[in-house]
Amino acid sequence: MDQTTGNGEWGRTGIWIAGALGDISTTLIVGTLAIRKAMVSRTGMVSELPPLCDLDLVPLDQLFFGGIDICPGHLPEAAAAVGSSSRTFSREMLEAIRPGLEAIDADIECDRDFEWNSRGSAYSARTLNEVVDQLRANISRFKRRHDLKRIIVLDLASAEPTPRAAPAHAELRLLREALANDDRQVISPSIARALAAFMEGCPYVNFTPNLGAGIGALEKLAAENSLAYCGNDAKTGETLLKTVLAPMFAMRNLHVMSWEGVNMLGNNDGRALSDTERREAKIRNKEDVLPKLLKYPVHAGVDINFVPSLGDWKTAWDFIHFKGFLDVPMTMQFTWQGCDSILAAPLALDLVRMAEFAARHGETGPMTQTASFFKNPIAVEEMAFFPQFENLIRYAEIHLARGGSGRNISARKVSAIGDR
Amino acid sequence: MDQTTGNGEWGRTGIWIAGALGDISTTLIVGTLAIRKAMVSRTGMVSELPPLCDLDLVPLDQLFFGGIDICPGHLPEAAAAVGSSSRTFSREMLEAIRPGLEAIDADIECDRDFEWNSRGSAYSARTLNEVVDQLRANISRFKRRHDLKRIIVLDLASAEPTPRAAPAHAELRLLREALANDDRQVISPSIARALAAFMEGCPYVNFTPNLGAGIGALEKLAAENSLAYCGNDAKTGETLLKTVLAPMFAMRNLHVMSWEGVNMLGNNDGRALSDTERREAKIRNKEDVLPKLLKYPVHAGVDINFVPSLGDWKTAWDFIHFKGFLDVPMTMQFTWQGCDSILAAPLALDLVRMAEFAARHGETGPMTQTASFFKNPIAVEEMAFFPQFENLIRYAEIHLARGGSGRNISARKVSAIGDR
Amino acid sequence: MDQTTGNGEWGRTGIWIAGALGDISTTLIVGTLAIRKAMVSRTGMVSELPPLCDLDLVPLDQLFFGGIDICPGHLPEAAAAVGSSSRTFSREMLEAIRPGLEAIDADIECDRDFEWNSRGSAYSARTLNEVVDQLRANISRFKRRHDLKRIIVLDLASAEPTPRAAPAHAELRLLREALANDDRQVISPSIARALAAFMEGCPYVNFTPNLGAGIGALEKLAAENSLAYCGNDAKTGETLLKTVLAPMFAMRNLHVMSWEGVNMLGNNDGRALSDTERREAKIRNKEDVLPKLLKYPVHAGVDINFVPSLGDWKTAWDFIHFKGFLDVPMTMQFTWQGCDSILAAPLALDLVRMAEFAARHGETGPMTQTASFFKNPIAVEEMAFFPQFENLIRYAEIHLARGGSGRNISARKVSAIGDR
Amino acid sequence: MDQTTGNGEWGRTGIWIAGALGDISTTLIVGTLAIRKAMVSRTGMVSELPPLCDLDLVPLDQLFFGGIDICPGHLPEAAAAVGSSSRTFSREMLEAIRPGLEAIDADIECDRDFEWNSRGSAYSARTLNEVVDQLRANISRFKRRHDLKRIIVLDLASAEPTPRAAPAHAELRLLREALANDDRQVISPSIARALAAFMEGCPYVNFTPNLGAGIGALEKLAAENSLAYCGNDAKTGETLLKTVLAPMFAMRNLHVMSWEGVNMLGNNDGRALSDTERREAKIRNKEDVLPKLLKYPVHAGVDINFVPSLGDWKTAWDFIHFKGFLDVPMTMQFTWQGCDSILAAPLALDLVRMAEFAARHGETGPMTQTASFFKNPIAVEEMAFFPQFENLIRYAEIHLARGGSGRNISARKVSAIGDR
Repeated sequence: MDQTTGNGEWGRTGIWIAGALGDISTTLIVGTLAIRKAMVSRTGMVSELPPLCDLDLVPLDQLFFGGIDICPGHLPEAAAAVGSSSRTFSREMLEAIRPGLEAIDADIECDRDFEWNSRGSAYSARTLNEVVDQLRANISRFKRRHDLKRIIVLDLASAEPTPRAAPAHAELRLLREALANDDRQVISPSIARALAAFMEGCPYVNFTPNLGAGIGALEKLAAENSLAYCGNDAKTGETLLKTVLAPMFAMRNLHVMSWEGVNMLGNNDGRALSDTERREAKIRNKEDVLPKLLKYPVHAGVDINFVPSLGDWKTAWDFIHFKGFLDVPMTMQFTWQGCDSILAAPLALDLVRMAEFAARHGETGPMTQTASFFKNPIAVEEMAFFPQFENLIRYAEIHLARGGSGRNISARKVSAIGDR
Repeated sequence: MDQTTGNGEWGRTGIWIAGALGDISTTLIVGTLAIRKAMVSRTGMVSELPPLCDLDLVPLDQLFFGGIDICPGHLPEAAAAVGSSSRTFSREMLEAIRPGLEAIDADIECDRDFEWNSRGSAYSARTLNEVVDQLRANISRFKRRHDLKRIIVLDLASAEPTPRAAPAHAELRLLREALANDDRQVISPSIARALAAFMEGCPYVNFTPNLGAGIGALEKLAAENSLAYCGNDAKTGETLLKTVLAPMFAMRNLHVMSWEGVNMLGNNDGRALSDTERREAKIRNKEDVLPKLLKYPVHAGVDINFVPSLGDWKTAWDFIHFKGFLDVPMTMQFTWQGCDSILAAPLALDLVRMAEFAARHGETGPMTQTASFFKNPIAVEEMAFFPQFENLIRYAEIHLARGGSGRNISARKVSAIGDR
Repeated sequence: MDQTTGNGEWGRTGIWIAGALGDISTTLIVGTLAIRKAMVSRTGMVSELPPLCDLDLVPLDQLFFGGIDICPGHLPEAAAAVGSSSRTFSREMLEAIRPGLEAIDADIECDRDFEWNSRGSAYSARTLNEVVDQLRANISRFKRRHDLKRIIVLDLASAEPTPRAAPAHAELRLLREALANDDRQVISPSIARALAAFMEGCPYVNFTPNLGAGIGALEKLAAENSLAYCGNDAKTGETLLKTVLAPMFAMRNLHVMSWEGVNMLGNNDGRALSDTERREAKIRNKEDVLPKLLKYPVHAGVDINFVPSLGDWKTAWDFIHFKGFLDVPMTMQFTWQGCDSILAAPLALDLVRMAEFAARHGETGPMTQTASFFKNPIAVEEMAFFPQFENLIRYAEIHLARGGSGRNISARKVSAIGDR
Repeated sequence: MDQTTGNGEWGRTGIWIAGALGDISTTLIVGTLAIRKAMVSRTGMVSELPPLCDLDLVPLDQLFFGGIDICPGHLPEAAAAVGSSSRTFSREMLEAIRPGLEAIDADIECDRDFEWNSRGSAYSARTLNEVVDQLRANISRFKRRHDLKRIIVLDLASAEPTPRAAPAHAELRLLREALANDDRQVISPSIARALAAFMEGCPYVNFTPNLGAGIGALEKLAAENSLAYCGNDAKTGETLLKTVLAPMFAMRNLHVMSWEGVNMLGNNDGRALSDTERREAKIRNKEDVLPKLLKYPVHAGVDINFVPSLGDWKTAWDFIHFKGFLDVPMTMQFTWQGCDSILAAPLALDLVRMAEFAARHGETGPMTQTASFFKNPIAVEEMAFFPQFENLIRYAEIHLARGGSGRNISARKVSAIGDR
């Protein structure tokens, strides 16, 4: 059974997901199917805000889903597990969309060999070359099976140990050699996925803290193949708030002395991050934000604690100690209690739609317009959320002004952005 | 003894403060004197951020202070009381600046008759005409005594009951009649102060929730007299955060269902606000913000509780209940613990400097460039903090680009604002 | 179909609930049925802790449920509504217990006339005498239908306006006259329910802030009829914490200057409490606690805000400002996020079991052993939670020591209570 | 100049403090002197609560202070530094008590050699024997100089690395051998201090997480010399709250799934604890509490973060994730913002007074009546705060009942404890 009809000028579009049975992926797919059945609203999707929603982004009901996972399982069961452990979606909903889930499940391949540890001894039986070939074969099979015009590769895999810096990360020739030499110290799983995506001519969206396409060698490959890509490390909670609040302190000339953040989470992401090596990239992304925003050194700690009972419900507590007039110390603290995959899934959908749009319009290279989605946006210096978001709006407005790309352009404006 | 030398191209500049013995005024004066002696930093002053600090704003060491208060007292004692109750400034500091405080104290007049209740029976012995004349005489005496080139009237008085809407608020002729008829239902103390300021040719900065110059009749008078003014109701804590955070929820398409805020404070402001009538304007200013930012109705409550033990330390707790993808409810809460006058005083200084700068450059009417300082900025629709602040930066940059008005313009940029 | 078998030495026992379709009642019934099917644990039930669980309390699988409500509806639908709005129980669970819910629903009578406003004009069509008769008839019909040995009346109705103090509250004869005279200013609905319970020979458990049996006249009637009763106003969140934390401050000689509490809730209870008159008793119960615990006046405010989006999820934020050595001020704040009916329902079950046990053992009058369950325990001065709880333990131990009343007494001890 | 007159039946009493220039010690001495001058209240002192205050405890104005520190410095300067960095006491106060501080300063000896690292290479130049002799000489000199009847040794030194378990910790003979052999792997500085105290016939109060007298060998020595002692690790914030709140969860049969605690502090204690080895004992004491209270395994983490800007102001945030009826998860969180030395100092004073009282009444061995003061009370299993405190009350009441030891016994009762 076909997943959808896939008609329209954007053509039949596929999302090929690494980590397809994970919480975010499952929530993304369940949400898309539930929205198609009008069981839930589109709340949480940035691409549904004006003026973005006036672009002719690919509609949700025209998307095909496929992908891989390193854990065995099936999508309907994964969805039932996520829904009941995080109390986010009901059995009624799952029953209504069960046929859709089963159809998509047929496009998901599970294989432990898709992962290895670039800094440790964990090893997949296949060579890197075989793995990349398998990934490419999987993507191209998905494309043929549904006669897709375009596939976006969406990387939602777990945090991986960051490979040690190597010249091969900077130079495409050396990277290809490392691939030929099966050098797993250099090529981490996310690099292999980005490589496979680019070789197959697919834009690549890196939602994870992993390197993915964020190395010079792959930027080169993307340029050669005229492909768009974006990343790294979606910001959905604490870091989002840092990039919103730190500019306020700066603009009021309030001097931040300390900013301590504690993150608690209990899902697979949390389990992976309880491993010091895997945590490294994420912590660095989280810690880099403040000095870049404030332009002075701040005593800032970030703890990530694995608290299994929380499941997918991430709780962050931040404590901000700052100095004001007459050097008087004052404090702010906040608690953010959100469901990780509920916060993340709509942003992943947004990014896929933006990537498809960019590809269709012949845009290549880093999608800097998506900086507001990431902790560590590729090729963007600006870390503050609001100017990042303004860039996204401006991007949409330029497209709309060109005329061709908009639908029926309304006069609506995104709330809170004002009259620009 | 003269307060300062008052030299420079800006000329000898006076700040005439209504509520001169209150916590904010006292802190503002203590801070200015302590900065002059290099005992503390300028943290908390927005006008010290680039590019604002590149404008030739009047320097802190060139300001003269004077004003009135409805409570009897003297500045050195008021300063000692604020410092010890809020533990914000030490006796060492007060001793070092005591001569300065005593000199300024001679320019502060205390008279209970400066206040009346426009909705109740409380009554001052003098007629409104006499009161306005007395205010004007006080201002002009202050000017002569120190041979001041320009005076900025800074309104830091307590919250007053909002007078009922009246035609005289809209039309200058009717307002003058009300003055002649001693109509205290129409003319509240803050209106009388703005009237006196404009009649004396002074720009007027309204830091309070009171109407002040924010009525059509006085806008007319300011235009006639070519005067700049700004207000109302400085945002220093909860409302500041609302105008920072609500746009984030909007830009992430997260639907805010409820936003409950609790404000606790124990200073005179808190005491005044424990009176329902006096609280009205402030609550309205605080409540108006969210619907304007989010463009949809939100269940939003604002409590202001008088908690004497807190003194000048304001504690706000906000609870935000919002919906994300799949309509899943999530929450954020924050606690803001700041010293009210420490947060407010530097902003009052900033506004006075901006008003003097505007006056010197012949700018008249509402100072919309200062919108980011206020809960309810006069003549500005935009409620979000960041675009408001961008307008301030743009204002400074335009002045700097014109060349004449800047000192030695540095390449420094305000942190977190980025490369514009 | 019979609800259960009802065998055992305790005999067939009924719980007759006022407010039978409300959130707490619904949760209580759903929970009991789910426990009978071993679908959930007994977490939250105090009567399952040692040594209480060693008493021969009536087992959950031997209880019959019936009652009244002022709102029309049916139990299965009420249960589905509570479960989906508060995400507390799943459709799977509801389906499994549906026959049980339907059987119980037949024992619930809905009639708007069971309520009136003793301080306002709201009026039921029937006379008080007719209402009391109807209540009694309903109880006795329930008893006959299931051949019950004993019925406990459990009052879970909404907060009602407190009737003005009247001599008839103190004297049984006058109360009977008020009943005869249809004096609704004196006899509130909860008083009528307690009256009906006692006239029918039933122990009465008052979970609500309403007066219920807590007036001298009804204490007299209970004594005459040899009946046990308890109340008022179960403590499940903020007040529970006050009675736990305030003693700590006292025992450390830390002086509490201010204790501000904000309660937000969105269920029917919240809606009722948004009415000033109905809120009165609850606020008084909440406010009375601190001075009784600390023995000195404290600036203590209690806000109860109706926040519909929260549904049954009650959120309380408390701010405690206290003074320590050298009179230095310090602060504690806590946030309690609990589901009201999930917290309340097991306690209601506990109290019913304790009331049945007391009745079976011939105990009459106020059940002071249950003080730890209530904000305003009848006939108990002690407000601190731990000594209240110790009394409950002691009560159980005395019964167990007497031998006859315990089952197979284990050596288990309630954790955290220590070696008594 | 003599510190005080030292008259009374308790005789001239000395407090000999290890860490005499630290924040707690300084605050304790400043507080005592300020209380003597009636400049501040006795808030925070447990020994001032009835019925403890009815015991003939040594009065504050009869205490002599002396001791050692490993950092060079002088008491008046240390006091000025603490006061200004933590804004806890004013210069006025310090000026008024300056003569007292100077007199005490003469009794404080600074010597870096009093510390070594029992697990690392850090080494004092003297042998252990020489160190113990020096400590004893210092104590006995202090005694002679002021003709003291009794000295209590109060250990307020920094956290030290816990020495590895050794047979010499259990057996006094082996401990003496280790001393003779200069075995610094076995004898940590706190063990040396306890040894010196007991050899000099002084009761020993261990406020620190260090082993101190809490090893079998020293318990033996205390018994031989008929000395009282108590410890370890005073509870002043997060752990105090755990021992108050965890029993509440237990008594409501609410199942704690996770309890995550974050402690931030910026004083020397914080600096010492940022060293993993030194943190060990404290973390263990903090973590041991929950399983002992709840009697089941809990996912409980304790972070201690060094945040220099906080100075002596300790901020703890705890997040409690618990399950209730129908296994529904709920949460509580609290923030505790206290000044460490302000919370600790009065308890240290209380313990010294209790130790002097015990010694005077011929009581020896572990002072189990003081369990409520400690995270890890020596020889006490009970971890819940309230039963621990009840034991303290009972201890006082027994003494009072014996008659001889009480002053004029009042009828006052400690608030919140009720009618026992």
